[in-house]
Amino acid sequence: MQVINEDSPRKSLVNVRVGEGVKIYNFVNAYGCELGEGTKVGSFVEIQRGAKIGKNCKISSHTFICEGVTIEDGVFVGHNVSFINDMYPRAINPDGSMQTDDDWELVHTHVGKGVSIGTSVTILGGVKIGDFAMLGAGAVITKDVPSKAVVVGNPAKIVRYLD
Amino acid sequence: MQVINEDSPRKSLVNVRVGEGVKIYNFVNAYGCELGEGTKVGSFVEIQRGAKIGKNCKISSHTFICEGVTIEDGVFVGHNVSFINDMYPRAINPDGSMQTDDDWELVHTHVGKGVSIGTSVTILGGVKIGDFAMLGAGAVITKDVPSKAVVVGNPAKIVRYLD
Amino acid sequence: MQVINEDSPRKSLVNVRVGEGVKIYNFVNAYGCELGEGTKVGSFVEIQRGAKIGKNCKISSHTFICEGVTIEDGVFVGHNVSFINDMYPRAINPDGSMQTDDDWELVHTHVGKGVSIGTSVTILGGVKIGDFAMLGAGAVITKDVPSKAVVVGNPAKIVRYLD
Repeated sequence: MQVINEDSPRKSLVNVRVGEGVKIYNFVNAYGCELGEGTKVGSFVEIQRGAKIGKNCKISSHTFICEGVTIEDGVFVGHNVSFINDMYPRAINPDGSMQTDDDWELVHTHVGKGVSIGTSVTILGGVKIGDFAMLGAGAVITKDVPSKAVVVGNPAKIVRYLD
Repeated sequence: MQVINEDSPRKSLVNVRVGEGVKIYNFVNAYGCELGEGTKVGSFVEIQRGAKIGKNCKISSHTFICEGVTIEDGVFVGHNVSFINDMYPRAINPDGSMQTDDDWELVHTHVGKGVSIGTSVTILGGVKIGDFAMLGAGAVITKDVPSKAVVVGNPAKIVRYLD
Repeated sequence: MQVINEDSPRKSLVNVRVGEGVKIYNFVNAYGCELGEGTKVGSFVEIQRGAKIGKNCKISSHTFICEGVTIEDGVFVGHNVSFINDMYPRAINPDGSMQTDDDWELVHTHVGKGVSIGTSVTILGGVKIGDFAMLGAGAVITKDVPSKAVVVGNPAKIVRYLD
């Protein structure tokens, strides 16, 4: 892997580790993350420090991938997908002081290989998505999804399994 | 119509066909699409090749319009709206190779004239939205919507018809 | 407060009133709004004219805050959150002419202090969110939320109250 930095009008890339053939499109903000070989990142995407994305993934436009997220190889991440790493986010503490990095606990999310995450899906922190699961467009994922399960809705429920 | 190209810090426009009076705001990524006269495009919008948008439409910020989408005249597209053109998106084939343009079938979506698409609406591929229909904020549109129908929810259901 | 203007590749700030210590990240489009001291604004955020945001708030990436929105101190606004200020948005009038600012009524939205707005929440125009309420990820807020209520779903419903 190679570490790239780019401070150009349409890209802010800071310490991004990339494999061969990674392609990053216009208007991307990424820092301290890892993108495996062959992975593509669309426009208006932010990827935070510590996020780890495998090989041959597609990260579509308008998507947010936060610290604490690990995505295995061959995952399709649709447009406008959001991950979460904080169960009870607050801007301030009960005493009114602003929260700092010490005031929250990072929760980890794991997306198995070959998963397909539909457009506008929201994935709560701490869940595990099994290999080749399919998350339907607009689903809000509040708990673990088994391998090859197809889920839809808010909150998402299993509607069937892929063969 | 006129074909415009702009490669500036806050706009990447490649072969965009525009009518008179089209206005495109900051941070827009658009290529190979068509925008009818008087149409406005907000910030953080991506419009893909082959998308066709009619006259006097408003495309609000954070919206994604993909290949295969046709939008007729006078349509309001809210903020954070996403279209889809692939029913079963995958990043990789069953053999693990990355999918290419040959591995998926483009599905077409049609939005009739005067339609109002609320904020954060997600529209699955292949649906037809009838003239002057109103899609409520946050709706996930999974099937055709009749003219003048008002739909809300995930999945969206008809709640009434406009006069 | 200080009025700032910045026309740089990754920021378009026009007449933004900011308090001490405000931090604005990459790819932000903001104009005519107010940000109280200590507030942070993430990437791919648009904040419109007349929006007023208090002190020590966090506005996360991909969020849209429109005219008519007032956010009190210490509010956490998650990623991909959208506000609305128009109940029946249309691009055109019944006679086919394009709508102008005279053709719609601005509705006001109020977010109380210490509120936590989860990722991908959509808030309809005209609602009031009580102090320290918590809006769960993916919720579509269609009516007022009482103080300290926790709401989830589309449409959002109260599931419990915080102590």
